[in-house]
Order: sequence, then structure tokens, then C-alpha cells
Amino acid sequence: MHLTADDIRASNRIKRLNLINAITGIKPANLIGTINQSGHTNLAIFSSLVHLGSNPALLGFIVRPTTVPRHTYQNIMHTGYYTINHIPQAHIEQAHYTSAKFPAHLSEFDTCAFTPSYRANFKAPFVAECPVQIGMQFVQSIPIPTNNTILVIGKIVHLFIPDAAVTAAGHINLEQLTTVGIGGLNSYYALKKIGQFDYAHLHTVPNFASPPKTLAKSFDTHEATIGLSKPNE
Amino acid sequence: MHLTADDIRASNRIKRLNLINAITGIKPANLIGTINQSGHTNLAIFSSLVHLGSNPALLGFIVRPTTVPRHTYQNIMHTGYYTINHIPQAHIEQAHYTSAKFPAHLSEFDTCAFTPSYRANFKAPFVAECPVQIGMQFVQSIPIPTNNTILVIGKIVHLFIPDAAVTAAGHINLEQLTTVGIGGLNSYYALKKIGQFDYAHLHTVPNFASPPKTLAKSFDTHEATIGLSKPNE
Repeated sequence: MHLTADDIRASNRIKRLNLINAITGIKPANLIGTINQSGHTNLAIFSSLVHLGSNPALLGFIVRPTTVPRHTYQNIMHTGYYTINHIPQAHIEQAHYTSAKFPAHLSEFDTCAFTPSYRANFKAPFVAECPVQIGMQFVQSIPIPTNNTILVIGKIVHLFIPDAAVTAAGHINLEQLTTVGIGGLNSYYALKKIGQFDYAHLHTVPNFASPPKTLAKSFDTHEATIGLSKPNE
Repeated sequence: MHLTADDIRASNRIKRLNLINAITGIKPANLIGTINQSGHTNLAIFSSLVHLGSNPALLGFIVRPTTVPRHTYQNIMHTGYYTINHIPQAHIEQAHYTSAKFPAHLSEFDTCAFTPSYRANFKAPFVAECPVQIGMQFVQSIPIPTNNTILVIGKIVHLFIPDAAVTAAGHINLEQLTTVGIGGLNSYYALKKIGQFDYAHLHTVPNFASPPKTLAKSFDTHEATIGLSKPNE
């Protein structure tokens, strides 16, 4: 199937929503927990979480706040704090239905049967059912004028994760945590770890099938100048 | 394990990189293909792709261009075009090693044994080994001053995907495509579809375990006002 920009624009709306929301591949599955100034909690599923940096530890996610009330964004703007919680396999259906448009006086914690957890004197509610719980402090909102979305940036101020899921070197086993991924708007996937490779130093790149003959020499030449690969440190 | 912002900052660098890059959960696994003005191709693995909108169809990804040469970003700035290609299970090792810092005169297509594919008269090379191939037109770069990264926004202008992997409603089966996900900096996960749920209308929310008794009535009350849930349309 080959679609052009014109074909995509001419698609019916539901097909376009499903297709384009799925086209990036698997997406992280997290619940964002907030509380408003009156003490009403809110919980919403997000698949747009993105790593921005490790030092300081910054994460971003995308909201479209202008078309309908977005309680998550409003609460973050009011309080400055939110939580990000990995959705485990056992709770995908409950998590999915947090995306319904509940009125502000109904908390998705209640309607979708999640347990608010207040830990470390943090202002926003964590989700007790989630194996990874991250306490976030709001840093900055960056408007994306192209389509009136907003990149919300926060800093990690608390991190709760089971000891057994983290190695001494800081690697996290997402399969062991039963963390899921989201495809499109409404499909959920379990994860099975199939590979882990070393940091990609130029001199450690394997000799893949039929590379040009000159490559081995090039690797030698550049070996001394190569540092640790640092994607989005 | 409970880590505070201070604990994260005080961690050794490698552990912090591994931990914080993994903490968002599973991430999409894509190769971005570009070509420079001299005709040299470049291919790089990215896990920061994020959906921004479906109409127009906009995708973003994060680069950190200021610390070391970033050929992908330079090429996009020069030509205005790039491709995004889903990494299949069979090619995770080759894809991983595109993250080594190859000098500009070596193409990762050659060193990592991928096949550049020029289709639909598009300026940037697609990756023949990838089941989903997306042709992108650069729209805008948005600086993220907090940590000197950049959100690169592009519009989908071509989309190639196997017919069998897309339903009439536009749902994509990522398991069937053998698309993988990335955990942290160097772990790869296969996907197994475990659930698909309807759009979350308020009146279709299941009665989850022990909800407050008043809820059923509230759903009825609001039923008439509820529209289609549209996360990040």
C-alpha cells in the first residue's frame, strides 16, 4: 500500500486517526496522575511520552489542550506536579478507559478502579497498581504552533521501581516488569526481550554481511578517535 | 528502589544514562534515512519518535545537535527530506550499530548492510529491509532550551506499508509486521498483541471492580454529551 499526503488527507477521519496514530510503531504506555486545587484526582493514559535527557532527567509528552478540557494539563499548570506510571499487562483495559471524557468531578482512579498512592510527601497521586512510578516536577510548556499541540516538559524528582528489575548498571528489564506498549489508539502489546547489544563503538561494529572490502581498514583508522555513543544524553 | 532527583544526579554517568533512557517504558524503533548535498547517505537509529497529529499527519523526534556532528539533522536541514523506517526483528543488531559515530564519508547503509531504496521520486533513501517506510518533509525545528535538544517536526508525504498489515479501519498490526521496540539505550523487544479495546466513550466504560455505587447513574446522565475520544488527533 502506498499513500501520499493527499491520500492521507482524503481518508475518512477514523481510518486516518487509526493509521497515523499507529505509524510510529510501538509507543510507551503510561498513566499520568494529577490532582487539582480542590483535591480532585485525575488519571489519563498517554502514549506520547518521550525521553529528553538524563542529566538533568527530563521527560516530555504531548497534549492538545485547546479543543476540549484537558484536566491533566490544567492540573499540572495549577500544581506544578504530576506522576507517570507504567501500565502493566494486568491493567490494560482499566487503563484504556481512562481516555473517556469523564467530567471533572469523577476521578478516573474511581471509575477505572486504580488506587491513588501518596508517597514521599509528593503532591500528585502515584498509581499503586503500576510497577514503575515517577514523580515529575513541571519545567516548561513549549507550544507547537504547527497544530496547536504543546510539549510539556518535566523533571524527574522521584523514581520508584522494583529492585529486581534494575541491574547494577541501570538497565531495566521491561519484560520482567510486564510493562506494555500501545499501538495506534487502542491496541496493547506485551514485550519479549530479544536482544541487548553493547554501546556502539565504531571499532566494535560487527562485520555485517558483504560489507565493502575497505571497511575493516577504515575502522582501524578511526578506532582511536571514537567515544561512547550518547543518544540524547 | 526509591531515587530522588539528587540520587539520580549523583549516580555514575553510565548508570544514569541506562536508567533514565529506559524509564519511559518501551520506545519505537526506527531508522531515519537521509542524504547530503553530495549524495552521501546516512542512516541512524532513533527511539524518540512521537506522534503529533493526524490531520495534517505530523511526527516529531528529538535530536541533540550541538555537542557532536549529527549527520541526520544536518542532512534534513540541507535537503528538507528524510525517511522513517520501522526496524524488524531480523535486523535489530544491524540497526543498533548505526548509532556508532561513523565519519561522514562512510554510510551506515554500507557499514550496517542495509539497502537504500529510492521510491516515488522521493529525495531521501528508504530502507528496503523495513516493512513500514515513511517519507517525511521537514516542517519546523523547535529548540528545547532546557537541555539544548531540538524537536524536529515533519509531515508524512509518503507511506509504504504491506496491505496485509492494515485493516479497512486503518488499524496496523505491529506484531504481524515484526516491528520491535527499544528499551533504554540498547535492549530490543518483540511485540505480542494482547488486547484491543473500543474507543472509550463514557457510556461504554466497563463496570470495573467495586466502583462507587453512584457511577452507573452518572454515566447515564452524561451519555448524551459524550463524543469520540480523540487523543492527539
